Amino acid sequence: MRLSRFFLPILKENPKEAEIVSHRLMLRAGMLRQEAAGIYAWLPLGFKVLKKIEQIVREEQNRAGALELLMPTLQLADLWRESGRYDAYGPEMLRIADRHKRELLYGPTNEEMITEIFRAYVKSYRNLPLNLYHIQWKFRDEQRPRFGVMRGREFLMKDAYSFDLDEAGARRAYNKMFVAYLRTFARMGLKGIPMRAETGPIGGDLSHEFIVLAETGESGVYCDRNVLDLPIPPASVDYDGDLTPIIKEWTSLYAATEDVHDGARFEAEVPADRRVHTRGIEVGQIFYFGTKYSEPMKALVAGPDGAEVTIHGGSYGVGVSRLAGAIIEACHDDAGIKWPEEVAPFRAVILNLKQGGSDTDAACEQLYRDLLAKGVDVLYDDTEQRAGGKFATADLIGIPWQIMVGPKSLAEGKVEVKTRSDGARQMMTPADVVARLGAATSVG
Amino acid sequence: MRLSRFFLPILKENPKEAEIVSHRLMLRAGMLRQEAAGIYAWLPLGFKVLKKIEQIVREEQNRAGALELLMPTLQLADLWRESGRYDAYGPEMLRIADRHKRELLYGPTNEEMITEIFRAYVKSYRNLPLNLYHIQWKFRDEQRPRFGVMRGREFLMKDAYSFDLDEAGARRAYNKMFVAYLRTFARMGLKGIPMRAETGPIGGDLSHEFIVLAETGESGVYCDRNVLDLPIPPASVDYDGDLTPIIKEWTSLYAATEDVHDGARFEAEVPADRRVHTRGIEVGQIFYFGTKYSEPMKALVAGPDGAEVTIHGGSYGVGVSRLAGAIIEACHDDAGIKWPEEVAPFRAVILNLKQGGSDTDAACEQLYRDLLAKGVDVLYDDTEQRAGGKFATADLIGIPWQIMVGPKSLAEGKVEVKTRSDGARQMMTPADVVARLGAATSVG
Repeated sequence: MRLSRFFLPILKENPKEAEIVSHRLMLRAGMLRQEAAGIYAWLPLGFKVLKKIEQIVREEQNRAGALELLMPTLQLADLWRESGRYDAYGPEMLRIADRHKRELLYGPTNEEMITEIFRAYVKSYRNLPLNLYHIQWKFRDEQRPRFGVMRGREFLMKDAYSFDLDEAGARRAYNKMFVAYLRTFARMGLKGIPMRAETGPIGGDLSHEFIVLAETGESGVYCDRNVLDLPIPPASVDYDGDLTPIIKEWTSLYAATEDVHDGARFEAEVPADRRVHTRGIEVGQIFYFGTKYSEPMKALVAGPDGAEVTIHGGSYGVGVSRLAGAIIEACHDDAGIKWPEEVAPFRAVILNLKQGGSDTDAACEQLYRDLLAKGVDVLYDDTEQRAGGKFATADLIGIPWQIMVGPKSLAEGKVEVKTRSDGARQMMTPADVVARLGAATSVG
Repeated sequence: MRLSRFFLPILKENPKEAEIVSHRLMLRAGMLRQEAAGIYAWLPLGFKVLKKIEQIVREEQNRAGALELLMPTLQLADLWRESGRYDAYGPEMLRIADRHKRELLYGPTNEEMITEIFRAYVKSYRNLPLNLYHIQWKFRDEQRPRFGVMRGREFLMKDAYSFDLDEAGARRAYNKMFVAYLRTFARMGLKGIPMRAETGPIGGDLSHEFIVLAETGESGVYCDRNVLDLPIPPASVDYDGDLTPIIKEWTSLYAATEDVHDGARFEAEVPADRRVHTRGIEVGQIFYFGTKYSEPMKALVAGPDGAEVTIHGGSYGVGVSRLAGAIIEACHDDAGIKWPEEVAPFRAVILNLKQGGSDTDAACEQLYRDLLAKGVDVLYDDTEQRAGGKFATADLIGIPWQIMVGPKSLAEGKVEVKTRSDGARQMMTPADVVARLGAATSVG
């Protein structure tokens, strides 16, 4: 993409309304525009990041055997009356009347609707286990939306719903999502630590939040430092096999949000030098809630003996739009964002340090074409901005590889390559840059 | 994907509420479930089709130089008061009040919001031309939603918005979208014929609807038969070059919807044997509306001489969810859907005609693995259903390539391959099937 043809409205000033760094940087980097309180438009740079996050979430859900569908944003109020949550939900639910005065709502979550879909079609234990998910916009009418996409009102969430014949099956489904989440966040360059958590309005008696440690996080967390260094299950993990050793490894070390924190146990189980007490950002939460929805909504299947069985369910959320903010909270410096490669809007940026110079122009054009031909998603800063401005923009928007093409080094057949993550610089020939970046994803 | 692990709730009976064939087939094939009047959940098979349609639309928008972003579903009422459309829009607009009694609406289209985004950032003619698009759920509160996704209330639309300094520029932008639309629908296996049309609530004085001819279409259309055989611009079309020869070729032949039909001109211009009068389905519409939104909303840029200029705009819609229905209306027979390859939910299906037979099971497993390894998106019907039922399901869901693996032909080292589009059958070795389907997309 040529920057001269892209839409990247960089802000020079720090926007006053932004209280936290991710919100500030998303506005400054031209990723986001507020359209109403807690309601945002994702400008092209932000949209690219959102899509990359979404795709990682999707791939890991599919790998774990979940099936994607897509439920609508609006739901019938009557559906929520069946579960008893319509009246219980409170003012965070956006309630709507259509032209015929039928009561609708903008879905804040989808336990009721997916249970309705399930019970309409699935009649036998033979069709279990089943895990259905979607990635869809939700709405929660927060009293005081703030922190940009971290606590927006209209937000993109992945929510999966599992259906099993009994608690043992449901726990296997829970474990699959647990492992899928470990992989999902790790692929985005995050440490998403599973911590015991309260179940809140979803209900049930077993839940983990996946927490990214960050000073700016909304909740206090406590954990054993060793949990931060546990190995992430590989892509080859067998989701049909026994996942309990992985779950045991991750849950045997203390990790809890402040809501369920047990100070006495913390001190008894964790040596003083390994006690971590900090803040964290919730990026996902998983629930086992048994028959909480299937019972009132009559989601029954015929069991092996022919008798009807109420299915056991769980639900599994990932905050897709929130993750864009969470990643920035975890990956930035004073100059701007430092995108991990897998979610970067562009993998590399070419900075033409002398726009209009015939040598630099020719070298940049050639490098641009060669990188595109290798499948590298590259941005070419071909604007008239001066070198200093180009450096600042590249740092602000956080592209992992910056390739600086200036007349002096070019005379020696070289360009300068800076990696945004660590600021390291090296001189390379354009051919070496193409070979290095073209070599699949193993360059990080 | 193994069918035994997929969620494909086939209906045996024709659903009574479905008045047209696409609605009936989408329900029967387990693609769709109605959640409220005109509001649908896309089940996994339908979701896959929707995503393929969306991706073709995206690729052709990007090829034409449009930039993707994503605006929210909800908008502020005040934004629509600026253009004067808030009061004009009528009961089709879903109006919402949030917990603080602020007036919102569920966007039926986005001219106002994109103009607000544009004017916030773009200040100079140097940043033009610009074309921004998104693919987002919209809502129109139809008095009487029907025909499934063909006239739903919550629907997925691609809408692009162009910004130019003057009318000449805006017409170039219009021409780019015109060409992109020709390619978009052709790639889906459709003849999407551009026809002169009314501008309706979007406004302006130049508009084309893209119409798929179908007896079940909602509107009458008139055209010269020769327009049906015009060549589609190739992928290599130069969007920066002069597109007027393509536009002239397509617009010099008579083609108009009944709203703007001119009987006298039709008879004068079109020889009797080339006059087509039939019905059609609108799958896209493009508008040039000049300063209709930029004037009241003050979207101005500094021109080359420094004076402020009101920009000229156009908008360009594609009915992404509606297309799933339109394609079925155009591509089906009594047995079910006949998906064009580019939008098929799976490219091929393997039918194990003797599930549990060691030879057929082994051959199917091998074929399944080999096709996956070649990147072929294949469904494996590994269920216990009898052969007749498997044939019926494969025809109903419309997979382009059916590979039937039965003991008799397998004894001779062959499988039977049926192409759904024409019903042709041929005996092939499994290796030949893999080679044929593995050879990229040139197999159709």
